[in-house]
Amino acid sequence: MRAYDIILKKRNGGKLTKEEIEFMVNGYVKGEVPDYQMSAFLMAIYFRHMDTEERAILTEVMANSGDRVDLSSIPGIKIDKHSTGGVGDKTTLVVGPIVASLGVAVAKMSGRALGHTGGTIDKLESIPGFRTTLSEDEFFENVRKIGIAVVGQTANLVPADKKIYALRDATATVDEVSLIASSIMSKKLAGGADGYVLDVKVGSGAFMKTLEQATELAEAMVGIAKVHGKKAVAVLTNMDVPLGNMVGNSLEVLEAIETLKGRGPEDFTQLCLNLAAWMCHLAEKGTFEECLKMAEESLKNGKALEKFREFVKYQGGNPEVVDRPEEILPMTDKIIEFQAQEDGYITAIDTEKIGIASNYLGAGRKTKEDSIDYSVGIEIVKKLGDYIKEGDILAKMYVSEVSDVETATKLLAESYQFSAERPESKPIILGTVK
Amino acid sequence: MRAYDIILKKRNGGKLTKEEIEFMVNGYVKGEVPDYQMSAFLMAIYFRHMDTEERAILTEVMANSGDRVDLSSIPGIKIDKHSTGGVGDKTTLVVGPIVASLGVAVAKMSGRALGHTGGTIDKLESIPGFRTTLSEDEFFENVRKIGIAVVGQTANLVPADKKIYALRDATATVDEVSLIASSIMSKKLAGGADGYVLDVKVGSGAFMKTLEQATELAEAMVGIAKVHGKKAVAVLTNMDVPLGNMVGNSLEVLEAIETLKGRGPEDFTQLCLNLAAWMCHLAEKGTFEECLKMAEESLKNGKALEKFREFVKYQGGNPEVVDRPEEILPMTDKIIEFQAQEDGYITAIDTEKIGIASNYLGAGRKTKEDSIDYSVGIEIVKKLGDYIKEGDILAKMYVSEVSDVETATKLLAESYQFSAERPESKPIILGTVK
Repeated sequence: MRAYDIILKKRNGGKLTKEEIEFMVNGYVKGEVPDYQMSAFLMAIYFRHMDTEERAILTEVMANSGDRVDLSSIPGIKIDKHSTGGVGDKTTLVVGPIVASLGVAVAKMSGRALGHTGGTIDKLESIPGFRTTLSEDEFFENVRKIGIAVVGQTANLVPADKKIYALRDATATVDEVSLIASSIMSKKLAGGADGYVLDVKVGSGAFMKTLEQATELAEAMVGIAKVHGKKAVAVLTNMDVPLGNMVGNSLEVLEAIETLKGRGPEDFTQLCLNLAAWMCHLAEKGTFEECLKMAEESLKNGKALEKFREFVKYQGGNPEVVDRPEEILPMTDKIIEFQAQEDGYITAIDTEKIGIASNYLGAGRKTKEDSIDYSVGIEIVKKLGDYIKEGDILAKMYVSEVSDVETATKLLAESYQFSAERPESKPIILGTVK
Repeated sequence: MRAYDIILKKRNGGKLTKEEIEFMVNGYVKGEVPDYQMSAFLMAIYFRHMDTEERAILTEVMANSGDRVDLSSIPGIKIDKHSTGGVGDKTTLVVGPIVASLGVAVAKMSGRALGHTGGTIDKLESIPGFRTTLSEDEFFENVRKIGIAVVGQTANLVPADKKIYALRDATATVDEVSLIASSIMSKKLAGGADGYVLDVKVGSGAFMKTLEQATELAEAMVGIAKVHGKKAVAVLTNMDVPLGNMVGNSLEVLEAIETLKGRGPEDFTQLCLNLAAWMCHLAEKGTFEECLKMAEESLKNGKALEKFREFVKYQGGNPEVVDRPEEILPMTDKIIEFQAQEDGYITAIDTEKIGIASNYLGAGRKTKEDSIDYSVGIEIVKKLGDYIKEGDILAKMYVSEVSDVETATKLLAESYQFSAERPESKPIILGTVK
């Protein structure tokens, strides 16, 4: 077998076999297939795509390149959740405790901030003492005892994807649905769950800007899951506005706790309940409707909040964060208001720019080595469809000495669009792919 | 400027600027653009192509990567000829002397054998004493004195193309018309002529298997030439059978001399006259028809033959080759006949396989370092459309101790197809692109 022939086959629109995909991926990881052949191969895939079977094979070959977690010692059906990444997405912090409180085991690996989007692991680390690195024993012990543990990705999780992604990032081959879906699903497959609820973000703050693109990705991921005999549901959700009102690390933990107390923003609460219901349903706790009721109940009766407290405590965090978040979390009292310069309805928010603005304030990283200031971020005061008068406060910037307020302000100013006409409102849930 | 953005632009179907093409090509030659970005870029070009303007820029940028020959000290309009490569293609050996005898300066760089095709330089070197490496002074002096010199390509001729071609060869990005045309034309442009007659081979022995592909390539090359203010004609010629009857080095020189004596095979003679006429016409020696008559006359009156003798002598070869080629050229007397196994019309000859068979006998190289046995080759006795009876001699193999006769015989057997029905005959000249 030669890499050349495999590139040629894909270039000419052929369907690759398992042996061919293994040859390319494993050969690349071992350094036997050089960078330049892999990048030509990736560009050929960009134009010719892969069918569901090829995607499923690519996913598995990549998953097998590193450690695969074996969750079989944990009783019950394990359902993982994945978000394709957005701005203000603190969903895991609420959904995890809800489903754990309903008896669905949450044994989850999460990521860090990437580009303009935040990361669950960074957010959790804003809670003083919280450890996102647990030994394997601790991880399994926590799940068995309290039903939930969330840790960072292990170093040896899908090394093939890490190496291939870095190459894609340098060769303009990131945004192809087979490659995106296989990259995501290889990490899910390695994570060891029995099923997946996939939160596919759509809109100005998401990687997928249109519903069409997002649906294609959702179908690709669900298709891969099914070939591997896994349960899967993808929920298409609106990312034309930041999710909830808070963007930043401590600020998002604060908002998650408020939501667990039943006082969260409506869009965010609704999304969390929907995703939690799908997870419970896939874990065979009832019909989707029954599960939705159970999730609502868990928020109402405080069980989800208590599960969050336990979760924080078991991972070394200060559990009092639940009662006095603004005292326990690193917060800043330096707040700069961002005011409207005109009257009108807010007709668009470039949510990616809001995410970047938050990074300029210090909430994200420019390079992997950068540190994060947990205290900073942006509070969205007015959202899409709100009527604004000049001078109204649109957003608040929580800043520190590391913040580049000037750039952040400029980005905020560019983000908002106004018009005399009220725009149509979009629901948070745009569709479901099963 | 970043390579990433240029790859992305081409991937998305954008038209590249001169600065962008320079950035990629020059950056790649200097090692600033890595292999893996260049190969992704080439694959993007494979799918998105380039327009005539981009191709002309790519051609010039590559031509400028090495030495460019300045022919301005030679009086008159200098016309170069190029063949895209076939089997039995000894055209330069006849066309060069014809046009030189008509007062058109031939100052030509030629190539060596490539893949299944032969090379003019290798053929010339089968003449004892013939030197294909001349100093610049010798080269110009010969052209000024006798009107013709043919040398091998200088080491620093279009180094960008050498490096890019090697990468294309490893990444399945060879067969894209913009890249093929720019690669060929960059060497022509660097060669310094005022115009080009391009012999584009079509058929089983050519790189372009269909008339459609060949026409596309011809139009691309003529288009590039015109953007650079050069005269250009492309002649599409039949390569469904070997050109003439001889394949090999000494054998082809022998056939060229026979042709210069007016005793050559009809197809080959006709092609040489046509190409010579176009060269004379582009050099403004008359209309195409007038030039064709002059070329015929030059063969008839022996002036072309005498020019060939002079040409051999001036490059150090033994001029007696003209009078006693079979004595002077390295020849073998070990001849193996290849006989037909059935009756019928010859309906197809896989000419590429004939070329490969000749290489197995020792006429070509497997690697750049291999040496050639000038004496070996194949004589095609029966051609397309001939009626054959079992036992008739189809071809003769001229062999030596280096020959792999078994493989060559197997290839010959695979090359011929027979049928009870007479196939339609094809002319040697299939079309002209101006």
